[in-house]
Amino acid sequence: MQVVNVLKDYDTLIITGGRMDVKAIRRFLDDLEVMKSDKLNIIAVDGGIERADELGIKPTHIIGDFDTVDPDVLKRYMMDESIQVDSYRPEKDETDTELAADLCKRLESKKVLIIGALGGRMDHELSNIFLLEKFNQYGIMAAIADELNVMVYMTESFYYEKLSSYKYFSLISLSDKIEGLNISGCKYTLSNGSLNQFSSLCISNEITDEQAEVKFKQGKILVISSRDRFN
Amino acid sequence: MQVVNVLKDYDTLIITGGRMDVKAIRRFLDDLEVMKSDKLNIIAVDGGIERADELGIKPTHIIGDFDTVDPDVLKRYMMDESIQVDSYRPEKDETDTELAADLCKRLESKKVLIIGALGGRMDHELSNIFLLEKFNQYGIMAAIADELNVMVYMTESFYYEKLSSYKYFSLISLSDKIEGLNISGCKYTLSNGSLNQFSSLCISNEITDEQAEVKFKQGKILVISSRDRFN
Repeated sequence: MQVVNVLKDYDTLIITGGRMDVKAIRRFLDDLEVMKSDKLNIIAVDGGIERADELGIKPTHIIGDFDTVDPDVLKRYMMDESIQVDSYRPEKDETDTELAADLCKRLESKKVLIIGALGGRMDHELSNIFLLEKFNQYGIMAAIADELNVMVYMTESFYYEKLSSYKYFSLISLSDKIEGLNISGCKYTLSNGSLNQFSSLCISNEITDEQAEVKFKQGKILVISSRDRFN
Repeated sequence: MQVVNVLKDYDTLIITGGRMDVKAIRRFLDDLEVMKSDKLNIIAVDGGIERADELGIKPTHIIGDFDTVDPDVLKRYMMDESIQVDSYRPEKDETDTELAADLCKRLESKKVLIIGALGGRMDHELSNIFLLEKFNQYGIMAAIADELNVMVYMTESFYYEKLSSYKYFSLISLSDKIEGLNISGCKYTLSNGSLNQFSSLCISNEITDEQAEVKFKQGKILVISSRDRFN
């Protein structure tokens, strides 16, 4: 069974253009040590180019139809020959973040962290969350994070390492029903239980052992580590 | 077929304790004229009591286990005999917002606006969004809003009135697949189409006629009106 640690071992960072507390995200990334990787792909998606600029992070790739980015900032990045540019027509069917998922596949990413995907327009936010399924189909472990939350999408049983900086551990079923669900290593355990789609039964659990163990036969589970405050 | 206008005719306002831009929400509520209703039930949920206080809105009901509200603020509201108090033990199975849904049923609410439910902890946010199904089962039209978004949950074909202040009109399927989907009155129309669960196909549409018409045989659709900015 896969052991998941959502704070470690990212090979790719995606910066999208959603609402972002730049100072908090900067500190969050420093805590994560994600920027210390030698060969980190950094993909700035459309408006995410401005966020990268504010964060002081230089992308290795920029992608999108570039309709939501300041032309001066865009020009500066376009002219930097060390940055790879993927530009698309605005009338495409895919969202910019979907295109970033395809790029991750081409780059053979294994573990991707996505920031700037939460907050702001809810249609964007929800479609970003549901895009985790696409990454999963590509065999990529993708996490969406802001300073209060880190979420991943699981379709198989897993161990989940306790994170000292996140109190809450929540499971949300995106399938009609998860049957034969076993949860151990947590404050609230479950033995051969079931979780209905969108039920709040497994919200605000807490990991008490070194790892939580979550076993189920089949289904789609959104796993969220969260905290009430970030310092 | 039901005609939906998400800006009008609320009989109940629920204020929950999520992250909130108090100034923006205050102006948003003024724009909506929701506070001008004669007999508006105002339910403050736990931490939402402090949000109500900051908004200068006096609740008619307070509800929750009151574990996330400042004791001084709580005491002041508890002692006001014009406010009805529903208190619960912290170990209950339901979230505080679920209890608020049950209260709406007892109050025979027909149309409920929920604020303070977006942002902050994603486990709370998603469980608030999925709670729209519970309101729907109670026969209550419930909307979740912040200054950029208003969302409702529909299980039957509907007309949706164009809102001049919201550019985007998005549909997200919460069912495996919506079959026989027809969308008209919009920039992008659909005739006998299908919408997969969590597909981004119907994101960022725009209503061009007076109303959008959305017809489908069965399924669960999240309808989101959104805008990039609120002044």
